[in-house]
Formats: sequence, structure tokens, C-alpha cells
Amino acid sequence: MKKKLPRKTVERLSEYRRTLINYLDSGRDYIFSHELADMHNNTAVQVRRDIMLIGYSGVQRRGYKVKELIRAIGKVLDDPRGQNVAIVGVGHLGTAILHYLKGKRPALHLKALFDIDKEKTGREINGIPCYPVEELAARVREHKIGIAILTVPMEVARETTALLVEAGVRGLMNFTTVPLDVPEDVFLEEYDLITSLEKVAYFVRI
Amino acid sequence: MKKKLPRKTVERLSEYRRTLINYLDSGRDYIFSHELADMHNNTAVQVRRDIMLIGYSGVQRRGYKVKELIRAIGKVLDDPRGQNVAIVGVGHLGTAILHYLKGKRPALHLKALFDIDKEKTGREINGIPCYPVEELAARVREHKIGIAILTVPMEVARETTALLVEAGVRGLMNFTTVPLDVPEDVFLEEYDLITSLEKVAYFVRI
Repeated sequence: MKKKLPRKTVERLSEYRRTLINYLDSGRDYIFSHELADMHNNTAVQVRRDIMLIGYSGVQRRGYKVKELIRAIGKVLDDPRGQNVAIVGVGHLGTAILHYLKGKRPALHLKALFDIDKEKTGREINGIPCYPVEELAARVREHKIGIAILTVPMEVARETTALLVEAGVRGLMNFTTVPLDVPEDVFLEEYDLITSLEKVAYFVRI
Repeated sequence: MKKKLPRKTVERLSEYRRTLINYLDSGRDYIFSHELADMHNNTAVQVRRDIMLIGYSGVQRRGYKVKELIRAIGKVLDDPRGQNVAIVGVGHLGTAILHYLKGKRPALHLKALFDIDKEKTGREINGIPCYPVEELAARVREHKIGIAILTVPMEVARETTALLVEAGVRGLMNFTTVPLDVPEDVFLEEYDLITSLEKVAYFVRI
């Protein structure tokens, strides 16, 4: 495996790709670094540096070829074998994420949902099997799930995390408000709505 | 108005407060900077610097007094008059956020919901009035809403944003996948699930 890129670079590359995919829909084939920069509150220098980092050098007089750039970013970000994902907790947030993810990134395979509600388990929701949490460890192993999206109630966030890590999950997105402790080899990404909202609230005050 | 703190500092202060509130529930009255640092993948020096920045100096031999520190952070982050918030788009994600926010931060008043679905509008959902989007401008002004949480379908993200800004909203949390353009005096916070997930996926690969 090659050396990993910095966290912030990966974030920006993912954002560029999202923008480029939308941009393609608008029917344009080329884009300049300064255009991409403007769309991300970024500088053209930064964009060019990020794109050089992934070894893409196909820039032309008309700018980058959008389709090629999307492919070049994909080569870096996506696992060619795909990666398996589970959503743990199918409440409103879990359901929103389920609908949202469907078909968005072919390299990320949503393989399983987990919940405690018997109304939800034992069937497919939006085409994805929903299992009872008691089967968590077994199903994570069965489906070779490496990434879990945690949308459980905060009371069970820690124990669920421990189960997931024990079963072999190596990446976690934490949507609960509970700060989680994970081993060093587990990548944890936390998202806290309140923090984002408080930041907005702070900066809009005059 | 005093000079604004840096964006990252505000983020950290908000995270500290969240942790401290949970910590209080565990029945402990004091906390050391290194403990708070450990809970945030942070250093004790950074924690102390952040807390000094807000002018709090009540550190004792046993550490910071948790309740006082929560109050000191609130003095900086919260508007004493409160700030009014709306959720625009009451699908799964909007609903999740609605449930999530309820009662979490007394300084943030969730005043209105907006949707196009007539099943949802014209009544209260979880105690908050839900209005048809046609009334957006009028209701934003009526309720003096300064902050909007955008959870509409991507097709209408841009036009809805324009309406909100025109009506006086000065802070926006964008949960759609569409990058938004806002005037300079509008604070925009974007959250893209795919970016977070792709970052996790990238870093868990071996």
C-alpha cells in the first residue's frame, strides 16, 4: 500500500469529485483549477497541488478534462474490490442515510442494517437486509463489513461500538453525541450536529 | 461585539461543552485539562489555551470546576436573547434533526419547519409549527429566524437558499449535496455525508 494522503487532502478530493459529478450533469467537459477552487472556498494553487498529489497531470489549455479527473480521483479514493458498509440503528437518521447512500458511490456497498425493533428486522428495507442487533457480530463477519455508520441511541453507543470493533469493523462514523473510544487501528469520524449548529449560531451573531 | 474567535476554536469549545455536560451526568465535579484533551484527541496545552481564550481562569488543584466551565463556554457561545432556527425540508433527515435538537440547547429556539407535503404542513410536528414553503419568506420574518437547516431535495436546494437569504437568514447549515453560493455576510456550514464516509473508507484500507 502506498503512503496515505493527509486527511484534509482526502476530504478535498472527495469534495472535488462530488462537484465534478454535478458539473458533468451541466454538460461541460472541461474545468479550470480556479473554477474548482471558487466552488470550494479554496485557491487554484491548492486545487492544483491536490491534483498533482494524486499523480494526475492531464491539464490542458481548456483546463482539466472532467471525466478523466473524476476517474483519477476514484483511483485514489476507491477500493477496486469495493468496501462493505453497515448502518447500525434504523431510526429517522439511519433511514435518511440509507436513502441517501443508495446508489451514490458504487465502491461503497451497503450490505446490512441493524436494529432492535422487530418491526424492522428480518426483512429488507430499501433492498438492504435488516438484522436484529443480537446477530451483529455474526453478520458483520459474514458480510465482511469494514465500515459502520452508528446511528443508535446514545445510551447504547459505547457497547455497540465495542461489539462492532470486536467483530472486525475498522472504520466508524459516529452520529451519536457520545464521544467514543476506539483502538488506534480503528478510524473514527465523528459528526455532531450541535457543534456545527453552534458554530453557525456563533458566527451569525452581530 | 467583541472580536470573533477562530472557527476551529468555536468548534472545540462546543465539543468541550458537550463532553462536560455528559461528564456531569457521571457525577464528577472537576476535570483536568489533560482529561478533557484525551476525550478529544487533543493536547492539554490546546485545551488550556482554548479555555484561556474565553477568559476563564478558575482552574484549581483539582482541575476545572465542570459546572463553571460549562457556564463560561455558554457565555461565549450562546446569545443571551436566544437565536431562532428553522428546519427546511421535513423528510427523514429533517425529522431526525427535529427530534435530535428538541431541548438540547436552550439558547437555540427551533421556531418553524417548512415542507411542501400537505400532510405535514398546517400543523405542529413534535410541538413545532410546520408551514408550507410558499410561506417561507413571511414566516422567517415573522419568527425572526436567523438560522436555517437545509434538508430539502437537491433539485430545490439553490432556490430555497436564495429565498432564505432574501428573507434575512444569516446562517445556513447545508445538508444537501449541492454546493451553495451565499453572500459574504451569510455564514455557511456544509455537511456532506459522502465526504465523511469516503474519508473513513480511504483510511481503513490496508
